[in-house]
Amino acid sequence: MRSDCHVCTSEGFKALTRVEVKANGNSIIATLNVVESELLDHNEAGLSNEAFKRLEINNGDVISIHHLKPVESIAFVRGKMFGKPFTEAQLLSIMQDIVAGRYSNIELAAFITTCADSSLSLDEIIMLTKAMINVGQKLVWDKDIVLDKHCIGGLPGNRTTPIVVSIIAAAGYTIPKTSSRAITSPAGTADTMEVITDVNLDLAQIRKTVTKENGCLAWGGAIKLSPADDVIISVEKALDIDSEGQMVASVLSKKAAAGATHVIIDIPVGETAKVRTKDDAERLSNHFRLAGQTIGLQIKTIITDGTQPIGKGIGPSLEAMDILDVLRNNPHAPHDLRDKSVAIAGALLDMIEPNGMNGTKKASAILISGQAYKKFEAICKAQGAFKEPRYAPYFYEVLSPVGGIVTNINNRQLAKLAKLAGAPISPTAGVQFFASLNKTVKQGEVLLKIWAETTGELEYAKEYLNTVPQMITIE
Amino acid sequence: MRSDCHVCTSEGFKALTRVEVKANGNSIIATLNVVESELLDHNEAGLSNEAFKRLEINNGDVISIHHLKPVESIAFVRGKMFGKPFTEAQLLSIMQDIVAGRYSNIELAAFITTCADSSLSLDEIIMLTKAMINVGQKLVWDKDIVLDKHCIGGLPGNRTTPIVVSIIAAAGYTIPKTSSRAITSPAGTADTMEVITDVNLDLAQIRKTVTKENGCLAWGGAIKLSPADDVIISVEKALDIDSEGQMVASVLSKKAAAGATHVIIDIPVGETAKVRTKDDAERLSNHFRLAGQTIGLQIKTIITDGTQPIGKGIGPSLEAMDILDVLRNNPHAPHDLRDKSVAIAGALLDMIEPNGMNGTKKASAILISGQAYKKFEAICKAQGAFKEPRYAPYFYEVLSPVGGIVTNINNRQLAKLAKLAGAPISPTAGVQFFASLNKTVKQGEVLLKIWAETTGELEYAKEYLNTVPQMITIE
Repeated sequence: MRSDCHVCTSEGFKALTRVEVKANGNSIIATLNVVESELLDHNEAGLSNEAFKRLEINNGDVISIHHLKPVESIAFVRGKMFGKPFTEAQLLSIMQDIVAGRYSNIELAAFITTCADSSLSLDEIIMLTKAMINVGQKLVWDKDIVLDKHCIGGLPGNRTTPIVVSIIAAAGYTIPKTSSRAITSPAGTADTMEVITDVNLDLAQIRKTVTKENGCLAWGGAIKLSPADDVIISVEKALDIDSEGQMVASVLSKKAAAGATHVIIDIPVGETAKVRTKDDAERLSNHFRLAGQTIGLQIKTIITDGTQPIGKGIGPSLEAMDILDVLRNNPHAPHDLRDKSVAIAGALLDMIEPNGMNGTKKASAILISGQAYKKFEAICKAQGAFKEPRYAPYFYEVLSPVGGIVTNINNRQLAKLAKLAGAPISPTAGVQFFASLNKTVKQGEVLLKIWAETTGELEYAKEYLNTVPQMITIE
Repeated sequence: MRSDCHVCTSEGFKALTRVEVKANGNSIIATLNVVESELLDHNEAGLSNEAFKRLEINNGDVISIHHLKPVESIAFVRGKMFGKPFTEAQLLSIMQDIVAGRYSNIELAAFITTCADSSLSLDEIIMLTKAMINVGQKLVWDKDIVLDKHCIGGLPGNRTTPIVVSIIAAAGYTIPKTSSRAITSPAGTADTMEVITDVNLDLAQIRKTVTKENGCLAWGGAIKLSPADDVIISVEKALDIDSEGQMVASVLSKKAAAGATHVIIDIPVGETAKVRTKDDAERLSNHFRLAGQTIGLQIKTIITDGTQPIGKGIGPSLEAMDILDVLRNNPHAPHDLRDKSVAIAGALLDMIEPNGMNGTKKASAILISGQAYKKFEAICKAQGAFKEPRYAPYFYEVLSPVGGIVTNINNRQLAKLAKLAGAPISPTAGVQFFASLNKTVKQGEVLLKIWAETTGELEYAKEYLNTVPQMITIE
């Protein structure tokens, strides 16, 4: 608005005042910017495209601007900062305020930071999970068994979900899979699937796809299964953290809201994975199982190898290529991605068919027969599209400076490299990884191939490369 | 910039990308907003007035926009979130990045939250203090004794500083006082003094004023004595917190940078003051003394009554009126403000004149003689102005619903009321307080008078009043 607009002067609105904007029965919270020019008239306000959309208004419509009421639940966040545990009612009102957009980024960052490390007790994690479920939608399926899976992440590549969903759906079980976009990684499953098909499905589209094909591969954020979590994740991303209690509540709230009954949680452990030690993995595992129980979910956790990337591609489009290679039984498909996907699908089958044949054997048979690929294609088409992934226009090959054996891989640096190259915002950007642990490499052999959509981003990634000489250790 | 500007497309800049803007050898960090209209041309960017100022450029000048280098010190903040203590080098690099504007509000909020409660050890507090001093300017005085004072705040009103400085300067001692603006309160000393005189003094003006009048009453932020602290405070304000370790480092870094040798720290204790218990006050006191010692400051702490406001006014202009009433020895001047100011000035005199006459007696004599007022007027004039404070155009009187005795006062609610009325941004806004503890009040007697510069703000404060029935307890 104009700094001298009479609404601003009479109400005391100044630059950076947080205000409530109302129109059409909708309401958003906004931060006021002021102009000192004739760009706007008195009684006029400029809004962002997002604000136009959320208020459902057009150019020229009437809006009203209000003082922002103090957000009372911030007092609970402050209390927690000073050691006072959260109550159930407090967490519910915090989640309600977050969903209503009443928390600024500063306040969200404070909430996230105060929940970091192991500062939330198991009770608080359970209450947070319930609060997150309460402020969102819930899917109900007319089935006794509804499956789901989740991976704790931190491992580049590792895109098992689309393969697992295809196998399970081909086996005739319901698996309405919703995934998130990247939090701190170069790609989330939703980012990767978006390369191949539409993932912004609404509730009706998910229901239709699952009814027809037993499964789906949708982005969870579009259907607001855990809308508070979606807001929290956007700030976690900026801070590049993902705290334990928050993570457990985030995962379980989404599984419960998706209507799941049986869930496998994959926890990769490695020095540079998200979970670094076996002890941490056991504690996390325990939290998942106990919190899951109290909200009526059967949880099985599997602790997997997190010492190196799974598959070759890191970044949406490159990971999508790996997935298709596995599903199509291509001979050059990454074995590690195939084996891990089959193991997870097998463990799910073992959970629900305790007296059936060995789950892994069954899963492998479904994959090799081509039924899994057929199901994947059918799910994608039911979601609206099936597109082949493309390569980015620019690349740079990182060659091995010496010959030797690969003895260590820094997953975090590898993920950062892919992000600096533009992933996941630029979908074809990322890194291809050709130097798995214990592999013998020759001098001059390609270790990594960096892909980027712009030369600026490629340069930026190359610059980072020079600062991390130990990303891949060759001895 | 335009979303389709070729700089944006080739560099991969999108809405909300954080970028570095360079011009004239200056550099700022900015968040990119994009327009989808003809408002800007390709290769053109619109900047805020603040950006124009900091880059020292004019309309039409050439700027360059760069990818923001990852801020490495954020990793140390994340480490602390997960329990790893800060090292001296880490805190220094965090402070350097904060001063350079490399931290977003989200990152600042995470740093502040992770330092909240008692999460900083005494060692970390000392290292933080040194880091804050290192990234700012330092004043050097040609004197063996340079005095200073500080109050932990949390108590509405309580504007003793201008009176203490006037007495000490009149006694012939050097007291180059710099104060902050409000952090979480309705007024800081700098906000209050700004009603009467100019407080935005640069180093040369402070030096000139102190050389001439022995003391000054300037805003500390304008001279960047602790520029990291100034940035941190702006986010603490949004979160309405003020954590212990941060507070000790903030206060001591400013005192050391101002060149002080002897400092009195006033710690008001009360259920609704910033420090709530005697134990907390003792611990804080201890931290101040020990941290002070290691950086060469003599610190004396005094623990005072924090159960109710000091003086009648709460808000810059209303507090300025109280100060003038005390300095002018007006019979209706608030006794509590006068007595506390004299006690603090007396304690300072006792610190440096251990064999002199009783400090409080001496301070009182200087005040009553009119020398303190003369000195105050001289300091204000040396700073550039002497203006009488004014009342706001709108007010509302809160009447006692019953007759009885005042048994409790909620300082936090009272401070919030003054802030909702517009203080300190609207300088004449605030609250006048007429219901001190143990006073007998009649039904219908005025307990509070709320002042506001706009009717919107007055309504807003009145609305809040209805939600806090126990702000003043009358039995």
